[in-house]
Amino acid sequence: MTTKVGIINVTGYAGSELARLLYRHPEVTITSVTGRSSAGQKLGDVFPHLSDLGLTIEAELTGSVDLVFSALPHKASAEQCIPLLDKGVKVVDISADFRLKNVKEFETWYKVDHPGPQYLKEAVYGITELHRDEIPSARLIANPGCFPCSAILAMAPAVKNGIISPDIIIDSKSGVSGAGRGLSLTTHFSEVNENVMAYSVKGHRHLPEITQELGRYSASPPAVTFLTHLIPMTRGILSSCYARLQEDVVGSGSEAEKRIVEIYKDFYKDEPFVKVVNAPPQTKHTLGNNLCLVYPTVDIRTNRLMVISCLDNLVKGAAGSAIQNMNLMLGLPETTALEALAVYP
Amino acid sequence: MTTKVGIINVTGYAGSELARLLYRHPEVTITSVTGRSSAGQKLGDVFPHLSDLGLTIEAELTGSVDLVFSALPHKASAEQCIPLLDKGVKVVDISADFRLKNVKEFETWYKVDHPGPQYLKEAVYGITELHRDEIPSARLIANPGCFPCSAILAMAPAVKNGIISPDIIIDSKSGVSGAGRGLSLTTHFSEVNENVMAYSVKGHRHLPEITQELGRYSASPPAVTFLTHLIPMTRGILSSCYARLQEDVVGSGSEAEKRIVEIYKDFYKDEPFVKVVNAPPQTKHTLGNNLCLVYPTVDIRTNRLMVISCLDNLVKGAAGSAIQNMNLMLGLPETTALEALAVYP
Amino acid sequence: MTTKVGIINVTGYAGSELARLLYRHPEVTITSVTGRSSAGQKLGDVFPHLSDLGLTIEAELTGSVDLVFSALPHKASAEQCIPLLDKGVKVVDISADFRLKNVKEFETWYKVDHPGPQYLKEAVYGITELHRDEIPSARLIANPGCFPCSAILAMAPAVKNGIISPDIIIDSKSGVSGAGRGLSLTTHFSEVNENVMAYSVKGHRHLPEITQELGRYSASPPAVTFLTHLIPMTRGILSSCYARLQEDVVGSGSEAEKRIVEIYKDFYKDEPFVKVVNAPPQTKHTLGNNLCLVYPTVDIRTNRLMVISCLDNLVKGAAGSAIQNMNLMLGLPETTALEALAVYP
Amino acid sequence: MTTKVGIINVTGYAGSELARLLYRHPEVTITSVTGRSSAGQKLGDVFPHLSDLGLTIEAELTGSVDLVFSALPHKASAEQCIPLLDKGVKVVDISADFRLKNVKEFETWYKVDHPGPQYLKEAVYGITELHRDEIPSARLIANPGCFPCSAILAMAPAVKNGIISPDIIIDSKSGVSGAGRGLSLTTHFSEVNENVMAYSVKGHRHLPEITQELGRYSASPPAVTFLTHLIPMTRGILSSCYARLQEDVVGSGSEAEKRIVEIYKDFYKDEPFVKVVNAPPQTKHTLGNNLCLVYPTVDIRTNRLMVISCLDNLVKGAAGSAIQNMNLMLGLPETTALEALAVYP
Repeated sequence: MTTKVGIINVTGYAGSELARLLYRHPEVTITSVTGRSSAGQKLGDVFPHLSDLGLTIEAELTGSVDLVFSALPHKASAEQCIPLLDKGVKVVDISADFRLKNVKEFETWYKVDHPGPQYLKEAVYGITELHRDEIPSARLIANPGCFPCSAILAMAPAVKNGIISPDIIIDSKSGVSGAGRGLSLTTHFSEVNENVMAYSVKGHRHLPEITQELGRYSASPPAVTFLTHLIPMTRGILSSCYARLQEDVVGSGSEAEKRIVEIYKDFYKDEPFVKVVNAPPQTKHTLGNNLCLVYPTVDIRTNRLMVISCLDNLVKGAAGSAIQNMNLMLGLPETTALEALAVYP
Repeated sequence: MTTKVGIINVTGYAGSELARLLYRHPEVTITSVTGRSSAGQKLGDVFPHLSDLGLTIEAELTGSVDLVFSALPHKASAEQCIPLLDKGVKVVDISADFRLKNVKEFETWYKVDHPGPQYLKEAVYGITELHRDEIPSARLIANPGCFPCSAILAMAPAVKNGIISPDIIIDSKSGVSGAGRGLSLTTHFSEVNENVMAYSVKGHRHLPEITQELGRYSASPPAVTFLTHLIPMTRGILSSCYARLQEDVVGSGSEAEKRIVEIYKDFYKDEPFVKVVNAPPQTKHTLGNNLCLVYPTVDIRTNRLMVISCLDNLVKGAAGSAIQNMNLMLGLPETTALEALAVYP
Repeated sequence: MTTKVGIINVTGYAGSELARLLYRHPEVTITSVTGRSSAGQKLGDVFPHLSDLGLTIEAELTGSVDLVFSALPHKASAEQCIPLLDKGVKVVDISADFRLKNVKEFETWYKVDHPGPQYLKEAVYGITELHRDEIPSARLIANPGCFPCSAILAMAPAVKNGIISPDIIIDSKSGVSGAGRGLSLTTHFSEVNENVMAYSVKGHRHLPEITQELGRYSASPPAVTFLTHLIPMTRGILSSCYARLQEDVVGSGSEAEKRIVEIYKDFYKDEPFVKVVNAPPQTKHTLGNNLCLVYPTVDIRTNRLMVISCLDNLVKGAAGSAIQNMNLMLGLPETTALEALAVYP
Repeated sequence: MTTKVGIINVTGYAGSELARLLYRHPEVTITSVTGRSSAGQKLGDVFPHLSDLGLTIEAELTGSVDLVFSALPHKASAEQCIPLLDKGVKVVDISADFRLKNVKEFETWYKVDHPGPQYLKEAVYGITELHRDEIPSARLIANPGCFPCSAILAMAPAVKNGIISPDIIIDSKSGVSGAGRGLSLTTHFSEVNENVMAYSVKGHRHLPEITQELGRYSASPPAVTFLTHLIPMTRGILSSCYARLQEDVVGSGSEAEKRIVEIYKDFYKDEPFVKVVNAPPQTKHTLGNNLCLVYPTVDIRTNRLMVISCLDNLVKGAAGSAIQNMNLMLGLPETTALEALAVYP
């Protein structure tokens, strides 16, 4: 018997991506999907590529479900997830609501009261590769932000192994789908096309996640400068990360590079969805699939570690990670429904 | 036991797309792939997204294979396919070599001698939906061109049912991957981006296929004007087709439209990969999957039939069709390995 | 002394393009610009590229102006233009309000009452090349729609010279800026990018202009099928036009083509902004400048005339034409402020 | 009487951009243009947007010229420039040949012998804003690389005023036209579109220029990490630069930011082509024009200076700078032929 899952707010890009991927999942059936403004419409009328699912968008989840994905914005998400948790439904929350352990930090960055701070402790931060032990028994997963997923996977091996000073610059470039399906001048085609710009320069909400998670591997939280850029493509994030090498730990130059590559390959050696690659990765190599590609190298002129990572923000950066976590929560093989190769070119 | 297949010229976009799709095929194993200039390289070094296939590119096919896909250019393809056929290997040829029944027409359009005109008669033109009876027993499939696939599927129901005069205009818009992986100024990013142009204005090689196949349904070959345009996207073809209604057959105006929609829905009613849709289709709704979307409508001011069709030129327009045909040739369910939904947005 | 001009609704793309081009006009000074929601803001804060103009957006035009461009939507535009006309201010209206001579047709297509049908007779349709005699003395110019500009310039020589049957198909491809700066899912980056679709399939509002203007050259109005497509670029329209040759008038095949090219070259021989070209034109060759490129050719297999035309929808299709018309109204050289070459690549 | 100029290698993007811009220059006439493989062709046949120039591409410069722009690749450029210099012709070299004062450094990075090291001393590095005194009397300008132009203009005020530690990270994002008109898989549309990647990760040839020029303002050369990324657009470079503040010099936090903005505004206060802006700049705000926009800000959480700069790589990053320098060399107003506003959107 398959597991019954629901998707709250299927009408955004993360929600529709969950539906796309789960369509191929042999052990799971989507039984209910909701959408705020499209309730009553057929899913296939809103998203023609999902018409084979044969679902109708509802105002609220109906029927009994075993596990729910929430793709609502922050606060609204927690408000819907908490009653479900209390009824014993497992939840993978794609919003930011349960990511930060420190409720003050949440409230500072998101400028709202937290609807359920008592759940922060038990929520598991859903970068599967770094929280593998806690996920199978979790009932609430805080799925990571798309940028943090690329940045943390890029830098965790370096921080954990003490090979850099705790002073990190993360320069991220993102496709536009990360901004969602809501309309704004910033995502208007004529403004984005043939253009590049930095945004959230005064501080991006994904910063505290990065600091929290990398901080788990160091004595004190690393000082992270994090700058995001919008580039004219739909899917994909590429993060270029810079930090000074601890020469007493790994030496310098190409020797350091060699050791670092070994450290990274070892760190991710059993991971199906993180590949340490030998050449600068391209977002196109991950389009539509669940891989994160990580390329560590050394700028030998300045003895700086550079790590370039990339992923599809809607898959590994959102819906794919969520399903990867779900698979572990349900005791299924981790890669189920996530086997498709990237669509290239 | 799985079927062993080879891919000749895996290093082009059609070839690499075959590999991408076949990776998920449970009944088929790719045992040998060839490439002209990349022989000896790992497939994953040329195409990182294919690294999990674990293959090495060879100069020639090795080992015994049951079925071969050829993704070589015309003439070169026939030259490699013929010896395979003679050895009893089944062949799906993605080149143009076996598409035209009339060898003179082939030689006029392609300006080369045909290496094996004796195979033209038995070759089955591989639009599965229109040659369904012949494909299972075929040993040589001439996979259709990407434009013809969209144009023929758009107009076959109209021609067959005699609802238009045999005078058709097909205005097609194509993404750039249809031009392949070979370099040219026409496919140089800075020339294509933020640009649109018509090309092959004096006659596109895909025209005779269209005329031949639509001509099967009419007393005399239809007069087809076919104009292709290059637009700044990678994948996708959208064809807008125009023809005058036979008012004595279907009437006019919205009544005609209603009847025509019925005719189209009936024509494709059991087809897994052709959908007659109720709203103008978008190429994005087919990205990465094997659907052809067909939208028939009537311009009631001029009583003209307009049919808009779209597909992914590398899937339904090439590798996907080829696999669909292979499935029938091998007695497998037609949709195997082609179940993925479109990657949207 | 320079002429004082105002721009109503400078905050759309046509309005901002007027400001961009007029910045270089030596005989004209922009003295007042208005915007509905941005009143009070500096123009340079809304459009950084216009900051050197040193203007502030106002709610209403201020000071005395000699000529006004209106870039408002239909109806709102007429409502603001009429009082100006009555005060003796010359007006170039970029909206559709004064384009159609037949008020019923206007009201059918635009579904509003016309605020001033008495002005329709005197308004001059502003394709300069075809109304050159009337423009210098006009006080009200109805600037053409972007699609009609490309389609009419493409087909006028053919209709006027009776070389085609009056049955025309116009298949247009447009960049997204033609849809303006207003937000919609249709112009959301993630929906447009890597996509192509037809739109306004049931009838585009620009159709009646095309029929009206081409009808001026023929005994009865031509039957025009007009279909528009949205492609992933910002600027540019390319129209591919099809019609059957009158063989008794121009013969057929390549001989017909030769004669037709002569007819076209003669028709536009003194025009600074229409070029009859010898190869399929590309929108990129017009980006940012005021040219319309026209390429007539014959599909010799079906004896059909094909004319491909292209232009920058914001320049020749809107602001550039408007300035071209203004120059004639003010007795200035027609090309003033419009001399820049296209920005290529 | 106008000045006669020649363009060597007009057939690349920098060369054709020179022609586009000089077309509007009232004091200069292009009398001869050369191209390696297109000699004998009309310029307008290769570049339709330049047809109004009425020029024919030649194998070698002909007639007497007063000043020459060379847009050849390195080494080939010096080989053609040196004989011209010896004949008394002024030269603006867009290649890298005369940029580096240290011939060893040149030969290390470019892996060729330098054809005329004796000219390195007198060559003036052509960032006009930083070499304003030397340019009017120079006979040889080494026009800066596109990346260095953005990076040096971004960081010069900070280095000169000693407000940062000499340890700089420059993360640059570039459109594809910077890679020129030559064909490669890296610039093939289907590979670039919907993709982002870092390149020249082991060291980009533009690094030594950056170090040399910023080093002029500091006691010892700064340690610069410079990483370039290719993004799917044609024109534009955006550089995000990071360095630690010297708190003893400018303090920290928002106070530091305020002082730094003042320093930057003062540094560029009389510059027509560098604007210190108050919001994150976008490359689109510079498309087709000669501006460099510079935005300094402070990451107050880590007390790091971030400077974001952008420009059009073919204008301020190549042809526009070259004309700006030419204007000074000829005693003309600096902005002549460079007055056009950016083409937005």
